[in-house]
Amino acid sequence: MLFHVRMDVNLPPAMPHEQAEELKRSERELAQRLQRDGQWRHLWRIAGQYANVSIFDVDSVDTLHALLTSLPLFPYMQIQIMPLCRHPSSVRDGDA
Amino acid sequence: MLFHVRMDVNLPPAMPHEQAEELKRSERELAQRLQRDGQWRHLWRIAGQYANVSIFDVDSVDTLHALLTSLPLFPYMQIQIMPLCRHPSSVRDGDA
Amino acid sequence: MLFHVRMDVNLPPAMPHEQAEELKRSERELAQRLQRDGQWRHLWRIAGQYANVSIFDVDSVDTLHALLTSLPLFPYMQIQIMPLCRHPSSVRDGDA
Amino acid sequence: MLFHVRMDVNLPPAMPHEQAEELKRSERELAQRLQRDGQWRHLWRIAGQYANVSIFDVDSVDTLHALLTSLPLFPYMQIQIMPLCRHPSSVRDGDA
Amino acid sequence: MLFHVRMDVNLPPAMPHEQAEELKRSERELAQRLQRDGQWRHLWRIAGQYANVSIFDVDSVDTLHALLTSLPLFPYMQIQIMPLCRHPSSVRDGDA
Amino acid sequence: MLFHVRMDVNLPPAMPHEQAEELKRSERELAQRLQRDGQWRHLWRIAGQYANVSIFDVDSVDTLHALLTSLPLFPYMQIQIMPLCRHPSSVRDGDA
Amino acid sequence: MLFHVRMDVNLPPAMPHEQAEELKRSERELAQRLQRDGQWRHLWRIAGQYANVSIFDVDSVDTLHALLTSLPLFPYMQIQIMPLCRHPSSVRDGDA
Amino acid sequence: MLFHVRMDVNLPPAMPHEQAEELKRSERELAQRLQRDGQWRHLWRIAGQYANVSIFDVDSVDTLHALLTSLPLFPYMQIQIMPLCRHPSSVRDGDA
Amino acid sequence: MLFHVRMDVNLPPAMPHEQAEELKRSERELAQRLQRDGQWRHLWRIAGQYANVSIFDVDSVDTLHALLTSLPLFPYMQIQIMPLCRHPSSVRDGDA
Amino acid sequence: MLFHVRMDVNLPPAMPHEQAEELKRSERELAQRLQRDGQWRHLWRIAGQYANVSIFDVDSVDTLHALLTSLPLFPYMQIQIMPLCRHPSSVRDGDA
Repeated sequence: MLFHVRMDVNLPPAMPHEQAEELKRSERELAQRLQRDGQWRHLWRIAGQYANVSIFDVDSVDTLHALLTSLPLFPYMQIQIMPLCRHPSSVRDGDA
Repeated sequence: MLFHVRMDVNLPPAMPHEQAEELKRSERELAQRLQRDGQWRHLWRIAGQYANVSIFDVDSVDTLHALLTSLPLFPYMQIQIMPLCRHPSSVRDGDA
Repeated sequence: MLFHVRMDVNLPPAMPHEQAEELKRSERELAQRLQRDGQWRHLWRIAGQYANVSIFDVDSVDTLHALLTSLPLFPYMQIQIMPLCRHPSSVRDGDA
Repeated sequence: MLFHVRMDVNLPPAMPHEQAEELKRSERELAQRLQRDGQWRHLWRIAGQYANVSIFDVDSVDTLHALLTSLPLFPYMQIQIMPLCRHPSSVRDGDA
Repeated sequence: MLFHVRMDVNLPPAMPHEQAEELKRSERELAQRLQRDGQWRHLWRIAGQYANVSIFDVDSVDTLHALLTSLPLFPYMQIQIMPLCRHPSSVRDGDA
Repeated sequence: MLFHVRMDVNLPPAMPHEQAEELKRSERELAQRLQRDGQWRHLWRIAGQYANVSIFDVDSVDTLHALLTSLPLFPYMQIQIMPLCRHPSSVRDGDA
Repeated sequence: MLFHVRMDVNLPPAMPHEQAEELKRSERELAQRLQRDGQWRHLWRIAGQYANVSIFDVDSVDTLHALLTSLPLFPYMQIQIMPLCRHPSSVRDGDA
Repeated sequence: MLFHVRMDVNLPPAMPHEQAEELKRSERELAQRLQRDGQWRHLWRIAGQYANVSIFDVDSVDTLHALLTSLPLFPYMQIQIMPLCRHPSSVRDGDA
Repeated sequence: MLFHVRMDVNLPPAMPHEQAEELKRSERELAQRLQRDGQWRHLWRIAGQYANVSIFDVDSVDTLHALLTSLPLFPYMQIQIMPLCRHPSSVRDGDA
Repeated sequence: MLFHVRMDVNLPPAMPHEQAEELKRSERELAQRLQRDGQWRHLWRIAGQYANVSIFDVDSVDTLHALLTSLPLFPYMQIQIMPLCRHPSSVRDGDA
């Protein structure tokens, strides 16, 4: 089941540099593991923004919520979710 | 080069049924040809909306504009474009 | 799997009275059948609006989209969907 | 009498961990007591958000306001209220 | 129980003058009867707008919805409702 | 002359409790004196919000501005003003 | 008493040219008479818009509403009103 | 050449009282000098707001920008500019 | 003097094809003449939109307004204007 | 390939003066180098704002993102990007 997720990150300017770097490092590790597992199906940077557009493929909304709230940057993100479904004109197996 | 495109379709209620069907049929044909060509890389329906989220992979903004304005439903669509780039945490070759 | 759906209805003022009544009658029949089936779990009118708030319990986003687009009033509705999940403080079995 | 309430929580990043945990613990206790009393009829988490959608069943607006302002997290919440009424197509006794 | 209601009226420009006048005349009659009954407690015109701000005093949300949808101009109005309660600093008996 | 005023209060979380209480106490005293004087004609709490809807009856805009800026909580309020006038359908002497 | 008024005009495209011209001609006559009377104190066109910014100097809100609703273009205008008062740094007698 | 300028002032709550007073005093001096010079043609307070509406009469956009950024309160203001031109129905020499 | 202008075009769907083509043809002629004159300094299409971003270089706001309202498509455009000035970091003579 | 970029700068009020000056100085150096390279094709100040409108000419979205995120002021900017393409009515070689 597919969900379109936009995440906008806002780290407080006063956060120490090391803390920010450590957060980003652990975020990257988890993001890459979830991509390899297939649950975080696509991940793109929005040009000029500290934000991404992602496509998640999960078995339930509860799983999606658990994944998102487990992200180290979750407390610093604004998240918007749109449920997606297969488009009748799609010809791509991977988009279902 | 990747672009995130959202299209919202609004057909006028007074449009004759056959005209609407013909528009949708030719739209679908072109959408499927562009997907097979690789320029319309992803296409999903937004649940509950007459709208889609798409990822285009084109060699220039001019090409993207030419593709979008050639769509039969273009006169009836609201279109929003966000340029995308590779995310530093992405592990998926197909997302670049 | 639960989804929060808000539907705002806008019938064109020029629609003949009988057509509007027939649409509403068939909408009501389908809404009541889906409620009895358990997929349309809750349905409330928003006071002062021709709009409702609903909770759907479906097995997938595709099912939800199919249900919503099958509604006779669908072409005249604005629909907003929010995926829900169980709240950690909930004590009510029926809310999962 | 039913009210649709959306609560978005924003705890200040600088709040000490224990204080936040104590707030959430006492919030949960009160939320569960009010659910058992029947006044907080439904409670769902919005996926990806520190926010909930709730349905309250109270005898007056004054009661609703008193309940909401008694919540330990009230000073950190944005609250939106929509009065609901029975939908003419509803078949569910519990939705009135 | 008090509700703050804002009504914005939009009559279609093509509506025949007599139909508009008849609608307004019957609207005025009902508005005045509801004011005398005490359910439509206050009614003010917003300067420069075809819109009003009203305070309703009703025994339930269902009653409020029934009153509003019975207004002859209801199909041509945008309506926004805010539940009110007694302000702790109020000294006026009539505001509860 | 009547004005519809909405005031939303935002006290900084870091304000010491006593200072906040003292501000609210002096705000209440002034609000009650202005209500007794007749210039602050109505005052209601918006349910679920630290906000009020008020009707002022003043002899000029300058008087209204002087009253509002003299409120102890003024530096912490967002204020929106709409000029009102008598509604042609009003039957209530007190609404003019 | 001063009020800042913004008027945006939207004439329906289908309105016959002569009717539009006649409306504008009578609007201009009334606007000029009210300017000479001193009640319509300033009138400027917003560049690139069929819209104006005006300053009215009237003895009451009721007078302002009566003036605005007497304008021939009133049914085709969106109007926004902000009450003004003398600025403490103003040195210009005419701005009070 | 005329420009409509709205300035909303937000002084940080933590600014020491003397610093705020000194800023306001020097702001007032400059504002009054620019009014006497004729470049700041009108200045009004928006009722209930720490905000003003002003009309500037300058020989170029660069001059307008230089004036605005020279204001002592500039770092604490949100500024919106609309270019104005003479209204064809204006009868007032001073509005050109 | 430079102004940033965004124009969004909305031709009514019911406009006959020839009328639309004639409007666009005369629009193009005037746009090209004004570009050669130097008053319409830049003109770009916004990708995916029937809209453009333009830079005008005119001697006054009145001239800008006269140019814009003389465009054949003016009655079908939404126009937004932002005054520009030379950026202190600009190294390009043509941007002043 | 052309992109329209708007940058709004918000430096924290608490930033020491020297740090702000150093940031602006290095920002200016880089901006001027990128203008001379031809990638930052136009740069204008928006009047009355700490903001600019820029036109970038880059070979890809990735290049644009890399340029923008390398700006010393990037962490303090809100950035909005619109892809542009040649306008069919443009007569200016430099606008393609």
